[in-house]
Amino acid sequence: MTSGTEVRSAAAFLPQGIVEDVCFEVESGRIRSVKHERGELAQRRLGLLVPGMPNLHSHAFQRALVGRAEHRTIQDPSQSDSFWTWREEMYRIAQRLDEEALFSVASLLYVEMLEAGYTSVGEFHYLHHGPDGVAPPERGAYGRVLLEAAAEAGIRMTLLPVPYFTGGFDRPADPRQRRFLHRDAEDFLQLLTGLAQDVKRSGARLGVAPHSLRAVPLRILEDILDGAREVLGSSHPIHVHVSEQEAEVESCLKATGRRPVALLLERFEVGSSWCLVHATHVDAAERAALAASGAVVGLCPSTEANLGDGHFAFEAYLDEDGLFGVGSDSHVTVDPAEELRHLDYQARLRRRRRGVVARDGDPPRPGITLWGRAQTGGAQALGEKVSGLTPGALADWVELNLEHPRLAGLAPAAALDAFLLGSAPGAVRSVWVAGRPVVEDGRHPLRDAAERRFRSAMKQWTVEG
Amino acid sequence: MTSGTEVRSAAAFLPQGIVEDVCFEVESGRIRSVKHERGELAQRRLGLLVPGMPNLHSHAFQRALVGRAEHRTIQDPSQSDSFWTWREEMYRIAQRLDEEALFSVASLLYVEMLEAGYTSVGEFHYLHHGPDGVAPPERGAYGRVLLEAAAEAGIRMTLLPVPYFTGGFDRPADPRQRRFLHRDAEDFLQLLTGLAQDVKRSGARLGVAPHSLRAVPLRILEDILDGAREVLGSSHPIHVHVSEQEAEVESCLKATGRRPVALLLERFEVGSSWCLVHATHVDAAERAALAASGAVVGLCPSTEANLGDGHFAFEAYLDEDGLFGVGSDSHVTVDPAEELRHLDYQARLRRRRRGVVARDGDPPRPGITLWGRAQTGGAQALGEKVSGLTPGALADWVELNLEHPRLAGLAPAAALDAFLLGSAPGAVRSVWVAGRPVVEDGRHPLRDAAERRFRSAMKQWTVEG
Repeated sequence: MTSGTEVRSAAAFLPQGIVEDVCFEVESGRIRSVKHERGELAQRRLGLLVPGMPNLHSHAFQRALVGRAEHRTIQDPSQSDSFWTWREEMYRIAQRLDEEALFSVASLLYVEMLEAGYTSVGEFHYLHHGPDGVAPPERGAYGRVLLEAAAEAGIRMTLLPVPYFTGGFDRPADPRQRRFLHRDAEDFLQLLTGLAQDVKRSGARLGVAPHSLRAVPLRILEDILDGAREVLGSSHPIHVHVSEQEAEVESCLKATGRRPVALLLERFEVGSSWCLVHATHVDAAERAALAASGAVVGLCPSTEANLGDGHFAFEAYLDEDGLFGVGSDSHVTVDPAEELRHLDYQARLRRRRRGVVARDGDPPRPGITLWGRAQTGGAQALGEKVSGLTPGALADWVELNLEHPRLAGLAPAAALDAFLLGSAPGAVRSVWVAGRPVVEDGRHPLRDAAERRFRSAMKQWTVEG
Repeated sequence: MTSGTEVRSAAAFLPQGIVEDVCFEVESGRIRSVKHERGELAQRRLGLLVPGMPNLHSHAFQRALVGRAEHRTIQDPSQSDSFWTWREEMYRIAQRLDEEALFSVASLLYVEMLEAGYTSVGEFHYLHHGPDGVAPPERGAYGRVLLEAAAEAGIRMTLLPVPYFTGGFDRPADPRQRRFLHRDAEDFLQLLTGLAQDVKRSGARLGVAPHSLRAVPLRILEDILDGAREVLGSSHPIHVHVSEQEAEVESCLKATGRRPVALLLERFEVGSSWCLVHATHVDAAERAALAASGAVVGLCPSTEANLGDGHFAFEAYLDEDGLFGVGSDSHVTVDPAEELRHLDYQARLRRRRRGVVARDGDPPRPGITLWGRAQTGGAQALGEKVSGLTPGALADWVELNLEHPRLAGLAPAAALDAFLLGSAPGAVRSVWVAGRPVVEDGRHPLRDAAERRFRSAMKQWTVEG
C-alpha cells in the first residue's frame, strides 16, 4: 500500500467506542489518522472494522493432533483420560513431524487464523530438534519453518523459542521430550541468537518462552532471562505456561513451598513484558497480584475446556482490571469469536445471570468489552505497544459484513455482540494486515494450495487416526 | 427420489458404529436396506454420513432477537441483567412481529438449520394472535406461516402449539403476554383441531406444548392433555418448559409444595411421548426419576448459557442412561455441533478431565456418544419412532466432507470427533431429507432469497438495534 492511502468504513471500533463513517489514512502499514467522514463513495466502503485479534498462544504443530486424541489410545485402565494422557498422544505426534510436515501444518493453520480474524500469532515454539532428538543440520531450522509459513500467509509472527530442561520439579526430562531440550542456558541462548537475524529479516518479532516452572529450574530461568535481555533488549515478550493443572500447582508447592504464580511474582519482575499462559488454578491473592502486575494472562478457553483444565475466574479478574488475551493453543478451535464466547458463557453460567463481562460501552456491551480488551492484552503480549484502531497503531483490522444475515438490521455495536455470542459463519468478509487485505470475501488466496499440502502431509497418519 | 434409489457413502454412522463403504437403498423417503459395499463408482460416493439431527426446541420468532438483547435496554438499576430482563426484550419484539415478518424470519432460520445439519425442528409455538392480542383473521394463521416456511425450506416440522394462561403460579397473565393467551382449554383445543388438517396436508407432525407449570394451571393442563389425546391420538409429542430458572423452582415449591419436575412426574404419566425442556435445576432424585421415565430432556446449551440459566448435570444424567436431545431455542447459535461441544466441554470443566461424556464406540468416543444419543433422543421427542441410519428410518442424513481440512487424514470416527469438538466451518457438504439433498456444497438453494427477505424484514428494527 502506498503512503497515505485512505480506507473508508461504514463503522469502526475505535478506542472511544463504535463510531459510524470512519476514514483511516494508512502509511507504511500503520494508521496515520482517523477521521469521521460520511462516505461519499458508498460502494467502496467496508463494513464494520474491528482491530485484528492477536492469537497470543499457538503451538502450530498441535494442529496435526486435532481429532486424533479424543479417544483413549493409551490403554492404562488405572489412568482416567486427562491432560496427561492427551500429552502422551501429543508427544507421539511431536516425535514424528519433520520440517516439511511442519511447514504444511503451519501454513494451513495460519490461513485458518487469518480467515477467522487473527492478524498476529505468538508461536510458543519448542520443537527445536530433529525427530531423533538432535539438532537438525541447520540450527533453528524449525523456527525458520514457522517464520516462512507466517510470511507466506501474511500473518504477523512473534516467535517465542522455548527453553525446556526437566520433566518436572527435580525430575529429569524423559526421552519423549528430547526434541524440546537444550543442554543448558548457554545452548538455548545460542539458538536464540541465531534466530534473531532471521526474525529481523522476516519482519517478525522475537521473545522467549520458558516452558513452565516444571520444565525450567529457577536458577536456569534466571540465566536465560539475563541472557535474553542481552540478545533482545529489555522489553521483549516473556511467555510462560503456568498453573494449567492442579497437579502442577501441587508439585510446585511441594518443591518450593510456593504456588507457581506467587513464586514467579516473588522471584522475577513480572510486568508488562510478561504473558502468563493459562493461570487457571490461581488463588485470589495470586489473581489480584497478577492483575496489578501489568502482565497479560493468556487464556485459551477452547483448549482449556478440551483438556478439562478447569475454570479461570474471568469475571473476578475483570473486576480487578486484569489484562488478558486469547490463544488457540492446541487449535481444536481456531476462532477468536468462539474463544471469547466460551469465556462469556462460562462466566454467565457461574453467576447465573447475563451481562456478566460487559464493562465497556454505553450501555456496557459484552462484545465491546471482550473484543476490545482481548485485543489490547494480546497486542501487549506479542510486543506491540499501541493497540486498537488509533493513530500510530498497526493497520491490522477485521471487516465484519454488516449485511451478513446474522448481523443484518443491527446497529454496529449490536452486530459485534451477535458476531461474538452466536456462530455467524462467513461474517468475516476481509482481514487486513499492515493496511493490505490478506483475506477477501472470507477467503485467503492460498487456502486451496495450503489445503492440498496439508492433506498430503496428513496422509501418513491416517491408519492411526 | 424414485423408489429403490441407491446412495453410496465412504462411511456411515450406523447403530453399531461407524462403518466404511455403506450403500443405502431408499424408498418413499425411508431407508429400505443398508449394505456393506465397496464403492465401485468412487466419484459418486458421499463422505461420512451421520443421521440428521433433530432440533427439538425452537421459537422461530426469537431469531429476530439475536444481537438485540445483549445490552441492558431496560433501565431498572435495581435489577441485574438476567433471563427475566431478556424476556422483557423478547416480549417487546414478540408484540410487533406480523405474519409476513414471521415468515421471513422463519424461512432464513430453517435454511440456517439445514445448512448446519438439523433435518427436523420442533416449533414450540406460542405466537398465536395478532399484534393487538386478538386472533388474526384466520385462526391459527401464525402456525400456518411456520408450516409454510418449513415446507419451502424442506425441513421436517413438528408443530407444538402452546397453551398459555397465567403469568405465574396464581398470578394472571400480563398485557405483554396477550398474543400467547387462550381463554380456556376449550379455546386452545379449537386452535389445535383447526391446525390438525393443515399439518396433515403439509406432511408435518403435530403435538402440544403446555408452556410451563407457571403458565398453565394443573387443572387446565389435565383438560388440555385429555383433549389433545382426542384430537391427536395417544402418542403425540408433549413438550413443556421446566425448571430453567431457580426462581421458577422456588415459586413452584411455594405454590404446590413440590419442585416442578417432581410435580410433573407425580401428576402425569410422563413417558416416551414427553420432552422436558431445560430441566436445568433438578435435584438428584428428580434427575434419576426423569432418566428412568423414558422421557427426553431437551437441552439448549447455547441459549441456556446466553441466559445464564445454570448447569444441567449432563454427565450424571448420562450415567443414569437418561435420554436427551438438543435445541437451538432462541437461535443465538444455530449449529448442533456447537451445542454438543458446549455440553461436552462444560462436563470436562466440571470434572477436570477428558473423555467425560464418551460412553459409546470401541474405544468410547465423545463424537459417537454425543451425536448418536442426541439424534435418538431428538427423534423420539419429535414423534419419530425409528432413529439412526437403519432400515425403516427416515432417509435424513448429513454428509461430512472427509477431505475438509479439519477432518482430512482422520479415520471417520476421529473425523466426527474433530467436527464436534472444534469449529470446522464448511465441513457439512450436503444435507438430505427423505432421501433427497436439500443442501448441496454446503449451501441451501434458497439462501439468497431468504437472506433478502430477512434483511428487508429486519430494516424496521434497525434504529433500536
